[in-house]
Amino acid sequence: MKFNNRNVVLGANVRLGKNVRIGDNTTIYDNVEIGDNTIIANDSVIGEPQHAYYFQGGYSNPATVIGANSFVRSHAIIYAGSTFGDNLNTGHRVTIREGAEFGTNCLISTLADIQGNATFGDYCRLYSNVHICEFSKLGNHVFIYPYTIFTNDSRPPSNHYMGPTVGDYTIIAVHSVVLPGVTIGSNCLIGANSVVSRDIPDFSFAVGSPAKVTRDIREIGSREKEGAQYPWMYNFERGMPWQGIGFDAWSQQQH
Amino acid sequence: MKFNNRNVVLGANVRLGKNVRIGDNTTIYDNVEIGDNTIIANDSVIGEPQHAYYFQGGYSNPATVIGANSFVRSHAIIYAGSTFGDNLNTGHRVTIREGAEFGTNCLISTLADIQGNATFGDYCRLYSNVHICEFSKLGNHVFIYPYTIFTNDSRPPSNHYMGPTVGDYTIIAVHSVVLPGVTIGSNCLIGANSVVSRDIPDFSFAVGSPAKVTRDIREIGSREKEGAQYPWMYNFERGMPWQGIGFDAWSQQQH
Amino acid sequence: MKFNNRNVVLGANVRLGKNVRIGDNTTIYDNVEIGDNTIIANDSVIGEPQHAYYFQGGYSNPATVIGANSFVRSHAIIYAGSTFGDNLNTGHRVTIREGAEFGTNCLISTLADIQGNATFGDYCRLYSNVHICEFSKLGNHVFIYPYTIFTNDSRPPSNHYMGPTVGDYTIIAVHSVVLPGVTIGSNCLIGANSVVSRDIPDFSFAVGSPAKVTRDIREIGSREKEGAQYPWMYNFERGMPWQGIGFDAWSQQQH
Repeated sequence: MKFNNRNVVLGANVRLGKNVRIGDNTTIYDNVEIGDNTIIANDSVIGEPQHAYYFQGGYSNPATVIGANSFVRSHAIIYAGSTFGDNLNTGHRVTIREGAEFGTNCLISTLADIQGNATFGDYCRLYSNVHICEFSKLGNHVFIYPYTIFTNDSRPPSNHYMGPTVGDYTIIAVHSVVLPGVTIGSNCLIGANSVVSRDIPDFSFAVGSPAKVTRDIREIGSREKEGAQYPWMYNFERGMPWQGIGFDAWSQQQH
Repeated sequence: MKFNNRNVVLGANVRLGKNVRIGDNTTIYDNVEIGDNTIIANDSVIGEPQHAYYFQGGYSNPATVIGANSFVRSHAIIYAGSTFGDNLNTGHRVTIREGAEFGTNCLISTLADIQGNATFGDYCRLYSNVHICEFSKLGNHVFIYPYTIFTNDSRPPSNHYMGPTVGDYTIIAVHSVVLPGVTIGSNCLIGANSVVSRDIPDFSFAVGSPAKVTRDIREIGSREKEGAQYPWMYNFERGMPWQGIGFDAWSQQQH
Repeated sequence: MKFNNRNVVLGANVRLGKNVRIGDNTTIYDNVEIGDNTIIANDSVIGEPQHAYYFQGGYSNPATVIGANSFVRSHAIIYAGSTFGDNLNTGHRVTIREGAEFGTNCLISTLADIQGNATFGDYCRLYSNVHICEFSKLGNHVFIYPYTIFTNDSRPPSNHYMGPTVGDYTIIAVHSVVLPGVTIGSNCLIGANSVVSRDIPDFSFAVGSPAKVTRDIREIGSREKEGAQYPWMYNFERGMPWQGIGFDAWSQQQH
């Protein structure tokens, strides 16, 4: 139903891997590389030209790379100069500016707004309407829930930007704000509607505005079994690289 | 200006009622049924194929039904397998996943993000950028104001989902979060920027993070007349089925 | 790459200035006027017909004016009956309803949702996903950060609307809510995730839910130099009319 090559436009030097499918009404601009078996659904724009395209002569579109086995749902806008590892999965209407570097196996959900010039590890999940500012650094397996915002200007408006940093395996619940320059450690859980204004140490559960550490995540019980829910990697494996073998076995393979 | 049949594509087994108008650049996929006098504006996608379409052979698009006298504004994405009663009214850029069941006379505003597998009664109003998670259940005449989020995973990430439930005539103000499994009764009012973490009894005004019941809604004064504003059905009738006859008269007709 | 006149449609009485560029897949409806050197990028809708177009005979599209040297990024929806001064700059996927009046040099970022019938001075900046309700009045140089919401119905749902008012040079940080009828003075700073429920006097820093004035903005130190950060006009000039000459010199020119 979607891949009829209707109103599809490919720019110069677009390199498509094997079995790539491009949806109708999609435009792919110059210098985009898309890996094998990837789907770019309909009504999308890939390799969106940067600001200089409109105003400077001699503009050449920077390279955009989307890895193999990816699935970009409809109405995406992905700028030139961003890169995505294999197995990218997006919702609808994502907007991703230039200079975003994503690892493998990332999820970027519907209406997510990635401001660019930010780095993301592997297996990150950015849910609906998440807003990530420039200069953010996310580790691996970081999950950010809907409508959470990262900010980088502590004296708005200023010229002094400091993006937040988030460690591996950390979870940030819905409607939270991470303030400029804050470092959230690894294995943290931030509660819904929090404002994280200070650094948060590893393994903390923090909540509130401003967010305060109220306990160790390992004290939070599961709703599915006896014992603790966190670290969550022992209780959740869907889509994770330890699926079927368990987190400890997978971790040992990494060393 | 909008209905020139330009770049309009209809799939197989699309059944259009009398006087249906389809805007330019709109795609309607297989097995969609649209009632009489309905408008689907431009740049929309109706009957969006589900995930299996991309990856499984023999996929058949589930039925999508949009009732009569509806008005879907531009840039909608409505998945196959959702149903809408008569007199649906949407803003722009709504995204509605599969398995959403809406009653009649619902409003779904600009940028609303309905995750699917959720039920909505009649005369619900979901304003701009409302995000409703899977397994939510809303009664009749429930109004959800902008940027409010429903959530279903109390130990994220887990495999244990519990959607919120909201009773008839309840109003939830802007920027609120309803936590997993919470039941908000009927005739409640939830204040702006609240986090609803526990069940709320009927006729409560609750506010804060976490939301606490501070009074009975019948104690809240009107800004337009002497006396109480709530239950609001005695003070607001625009677009409601009791328009012109009053709430009590209408209620008696229902029995 | 973008200006190939592919699937571009212009309505009746569309007046384009010199050197206007219109992106592919863009529709401009009747009675739109666009100033010299302006760019309307791809996949946009300018002069979107109002509600009456669908249901009333003899509809004539109200005039829409976009000033010179403007840059409207892709996927905009701008309704007929809104006006924008010169040097407008938008992000992607803005939605702007009828009756919005913008001064010159305004920024309206990605996914901003402007409900119309509101006024904005010069040099306003509305960042990502800002939601401005009807009957709002913003002065000059007002900066509203992501996901902040303006509201106008204090007893929802009612028929009594009162939009917020914001004075010149005021800054509202992310994820805040401004409640109906509130007046925020000039030179204020509202902290992240605040709910502004009462009037705020000039030069106040207010934060919290409900927002309370905690100090004078002139007591807030800079991160870039010795001394105070606010009023910010002495520390930030990028894109402002005092760029290169300083705020005091520019101010004196205005008198």
